[in-house]
Amino acid sequence: MISILVTGSSGRMGQAVQEAVTQNPETCVGATHDQGQELYPALAKCDVVIDFSHHGFTSTLLAEAVANNKPVVIGTTGHTDLERQEIMDAAASIPIVFASNYSVGVNTLFWLTRKAAQILGGSCDMEVMEMHHRHKIDAPSGTARTLAEILSGAIDRNYEDSVVFGRSGLVGPRPDNEIGMHSLRGGDVVGDHTVVFASDGERLELTHKASSRMTFASGAVRAALWLQGKEPRLYNMEDVLGLSKL
Amino acid sequence: MISILVTGSSGRMGQAVQEAVTQNPETCVGATHDQGQELYPALAKCDVVIDFSHHGFTSTLLAEAVANNKPVVIGTTGHTDLERQEIMDAAASIPIVFASNYSVGVNTLFWLTRKAAQILGGSCDMEVMEMHHRHKIDAPSGTARTLAEILSGAIDRNYEDSVVFGRSGLVGPRPDNEIGMHSLRGGDVVGDHTVVFASDGERLELTHKASSRMTFASGAVRAALWLQGKEPRLYNMEDVLGLSKL
Amino acid sequence: MISILVTGSSGRMGQAVQEAVTQNPETCVGATHDQGQELYPALAKCDVVIDFSHHGFTSTLLAEAVANNKPVVIGTTGHTDLERQEIMDAAASIPIVFASNYSVGVNTLFWLTRKAAQILGGSCDMEVMEMHHRHKIDAPSGTARTLAEILSGAIDRNYEDSVVFGRSGLVGPRPDNEIGMHSLRGGDVVGDHTVVFASDGERLELTHKASSRMTFASGAVRAALWLQGKEPRLYNMEDVLGLSKL
Amino acid sequence: MISILVTGSSGRMGQAVQEAVTQNPETCVGATHDQGQELYPALAKCDVVIDFSHHGFTSTLLAEAVANNKPVVIGTTGHTDLERQEIMDAAASIPIVFASNYSVGVNTLFWLTRKAAQILGGSCDMEVMEMHHRHKIDAPSGTARTLAEILSGAIDRNYEDSVVFGRSGLVGPRPDNEIGMHSLRGGDVVGDHTVVFASDGERLELTHKASSRMTFASGAVRAALWLQGKEPRLYNMEDVLGLSKL
Repeated sequence: MISILVTGSSGRMGQAVQEAVTQNPETCVGATHDQGQELYPALAKCDVVIDFSHHGFTSTLLAEAVANNKPVVIGTTGHTDLERQEIMDAAASIPIVFASNYSVGVNTLFWLTRKAAQILGGSCDMEVMEMHHRHKIDAPSGTARTLAEILSGAIDRNYEDSVVFGRSGLVGPRPDNEIGMHSLRGGDVVGDHTVVFASDGERLELTHKASSRMTFASGAVRAALWLQGKEPRLYNMEDVLGLSKL
Repeated sequence: MISILVTGSSGRMGQAVQEAVTQNPETCVGATHDQGQELYPALAKCDVVIDFSHHGFTSTLLAEAVANNKPVVIGTTGHTDLERQEIMDAAASIPIVFASNYSVGVNTLFWLTRKAAQILGGSCDMEVMEMHHRHKIDAPSGTARTLAEILSGAIDRNYEDSVVFGRSGLVGPRPDNEIGMHSLRGGDVVGDHTVVFASDGERLELTHKASSRMTFASGAVRAALWLQGKEPRLYNMEDVLGLSKL
Repeated sequence: MISILVTGSSGRMGQAVQEAVTQNPETCVGATHDQGQELYPALAKCDVVIDFSHHGFTSTLLAEAVANNKPVVIGTTGHTDLERQEIMDAAASIPIVFASNYSVGVNTLFWLTRKAAQILGGSCDMEVMEMHHRHKIDAPSGTARTLAEILSGAIDRNYEDSVVFGRSGLVGPRPDNEIGMHSLRGGDVVGDHTVVFASDGERLELTHKASSRMTFASGAVRAALWLQGKEPRLYNMEDVLGLSKL
Repeated sequence: MISILVTGSSGRMGQAVQEAVTQNPETCVGATHDQGQELYPALAKCDVVIDFSHHGFTSTLLAEAVANNKPVVIGTTGHTDLERQEIMDAAASIPIVFASNYSVGVNTLFWLTRKAAQILGGSCDMEVMEMHHRHKIDAPSGTARTLAEILSGAIDRNYEDSVVFGRSGLVGPRPDNEIGMHSLRGGDVVGDHTVVFASDGERLELTHKASSRMTFASGAVRAALWLQGKEPRLYNMEDVLGLSKL
């Protein structure tokens, strides 16, 4: 049984992580930590840390984790350059997983999209479609942007030069190297993403549908389990999922 | 057996209509007509005309149809005001079906969308999505525009004030009365249309997928059959399908 | 402000109803009630009751509601014949909404499916597809069964004679009056339903996707608001949504 | 310019192949061949053969192709054991592509499904869904069967032991190692296939939609071009598409 320290324990992601840890037959919540509490005692009794607190906590957390030789899964985003450097430095002493999205499904979608674009990219029209809840303030989603970057890369283009938003009017026939991006907004949709590869006579579509943030929490637990016995280094979810060997 | 005159017989729609007439157990191709040929003999031996030639032919066709008392299904588009007036005048003497889209499915989608918007419009976020082949030069499709007009009407708004194209950047939370329009282009897709009604906890989606222009041809044949014994008047596909009585 | 009594308040649906009542600008939770508590004081201070407790509570609830002249929304299922009779009797004195599904979207889907089947039923191949979470023990879902019953009715057939499950082997060409039923199971899907109408050259698909039980809760709140000032009678969600007048 | 001999030239696939050859900027129809015609003169003036005639013609075709040192793309199915042996024997002298499905998209779907099942198979519920036209007499489709075989293989199971058709009644919670198979029939659908990987909080779906048999024809042309300069051997579409190196 792997004992996990869940930091940011009162936050929405912190609570989801605790639920995911409890559900997993191989893990238990060894300790929780929240803002203002002492970190050392909690850390001492656990095998690994899952941190979805706040990037401002990364520095403190890593110093203690290195001192106590505990692996860490970092789920926070928005780090400063200094904090990013601290993550890389810490990874010389302890194994760390650092990823912007811990969903197994989304990371699998990224990988499959890269491969599909290698196979079909030159001969297909590629479009990205996403739908999120009405409260989301930016478009496209970060995940949709990553998908379009993968597609652009497969045809040796930049994201900025390839992506078009909102065809309207007499736009003419579709250019070969264009990537259409479509951001639907409505209701409380957690997050749907579809990549379309269309050619004469056929279409291939790769779709991911997230229905709860538990998917991000259980991906982080998978990363924590995978870290056991690993060499000190900075890993990402592609490493955790073993996708680089496929 | 109803005998049908197919005009514009060498065009792509004219050929599809001939195939649909032949397949229908109640109809036969009585005669065909193409540019430069004499109209009268062809018209004389048929019960009804299906015209997908060109709007420039409407005037000539209707004069002969009125003189010979033959009902007409008009499938051409782009009529001038004068030609539209001639259609209305002719409808005082002969029964005419005049519609911009003869697909039973698309007309049903229009009708269902109007009803769904009446039921859900005030409390839902509404979006329209369409996909067509890479050669299509305009966006959105006419059918998608009609769908957005129906949605706008249901919330007492104009199409122009409601429809947004291509969300990109920090657009903020979705306004209530916005209708997102998304035009995908790729491959040889004949035409897909989806209307989304999204609210907290649920989504309703109405989708039409056209796979061949035979769907437009067989809708026109249905209109031709329906015209038998009808009073002189201008009808549309909603009349043919009996949707106004539902 | 309409004050609502939420019974079965500790249950999952009871809690969802409280959340929906609180979110609605026109309603507030006037009182809650749970097993073993006194009903009268709670009832006295509220304008209307929403009951998702248990059908065994219906009898007690209705007696008090009639005595205090309070309208009731009944969301429980599985009533005995006697309990059903008590509901009908109570509806002579107070207005009651009684429905098996309070989702606005699902009821709209039922209505649209009925209309689409009237328009297209004779000339289309109709199929029903649903997906639910891996824990669901029965198939098809009640909602999918209702959809197939609506489709069967439109072609003057019985559910039992029309529905086929699991085509496998040399089944031969598809008979005209068959309705294919497909129950997918997996993950934690709350509930997706799609009705397909397929003919030569086109397909129409009506889809509902539920993402949380809040959709059922907010439908019940809508029913409670609608009940204000209504005549004593037994109503269903079609009445609440005004679908019968469309 | 590669000159192609199209055999079975009057058949539906033979005609589609001629169209695909003509459309491709690097190929031309050097000659056609149909039942009863002489093969040698047609073969002599071409660089490569695409054969969608009938498996009974394979033996004759290969003897001539070997004698004239011409590569062959075999698109026929249903070969006897003897004919299969002749294909393997001929592949010692000339390069041959032999595949049951020449669609680039379907072969890509096979490959992506295998990879996705390796990544997700153990932790996901997997389902296969397909839709074909009303005239198809068997279920599931060969392509859907291949997809289910790929999924079964990824969890070390047999197709027969894993696949379930038509859940109906009190089936209980979904077992881990089950693969649900769903065959929709209706209209004139050329062929849709979807593989679903569902787990708590997310779903990944891989979908292929064929809209015309041109997709099979142009895949065969791609195979013919790829064969230029290849060593004598038996290749499949995975080789043509370079998927084994990914």
